[in-house]
Amino acid sequence: MNSIILFAHGARDPEWARPLQRLRDSVLAQAPAADVRLAFLEFMSPTLAEALDAVALEGATRAEIVPVFLAQGGHVKRDVPLILQAARERHPSLEIVLRDALGESQAVIEAMAICVLARA
Amino acid sequence: MNSIILFAHGARDPEWARPLQRLRDSVLAQAPAADVRLAFLEFMSPTLAEALDAVALEGATRAEIVPVFLAQGGHVKRDVPLILQAARERHPSLEIVLRDALGESQAVIEAMAICVLARA
Repeated sequence: MNSIILFAHGARDPEWARPLQRLRDSVLAQAPAADVRLAFLEFMSPTLAEALDAVALEGATRAEIVPVFLAQGGHVKRDVPLILQAARERHPSLEIVLRDALGESQAVIEAMAICVLARA
Repeated sequence: MNSIILFAHGARDPEWARPLQRLRDSVLAQAPAADVRLAFLEFMSPTLAEALDAVALEGATRAEIVPVFLAQGGHVKRDVPLILQAARERHPSLEIVLRDALGESQAVIEAMAICVLARA
């Protein structure tokens, strides 16, 4: 089983997670059989470590982490590799792949640009 | 003159701003005559207040602020209104409009979902 973990910063305001839930729904609408979960750096649960433990426990062989961040900042560059290193030690049979931040994707940038101009 | 201010969080890592610059380039590719600027909440310059002062000084009559955030969290809900209130007092003839966060847009969410699955 391949798990996709949508990994976002998290915030104190519970409403903050709503676009993430809509993103998961949108992925599932296109790929109903996919295993797609959310995980957070702080303020919200599960954490990335907890999500990785859960997919390992449920028998996933591969976890793909998609940072739902606008850019690869300190969190993605510095915090995430440490979390992944610890998770790889806990779950040596789980292949853990870290993808680029979604905001670095040219298609996402172009969709944002269209949105900027749509109501400008 | 209508100015579009792409407003993002900012980070210590200068590379963090690159997707924002690509977003501005993408907007300008579609609307070469638009006045499109970046502004940041912290760590990077100009700040939103500085960007609003600059567009007012350059004769803009309207400033449209587009939060380049994944969701309307505490920053957009709490910090930005205070910055805008102070800017409106400094520049009473400048119309300042705050748009929804780009990450709340369904088109942006769908582009992200396609990107999640493209390499899954």
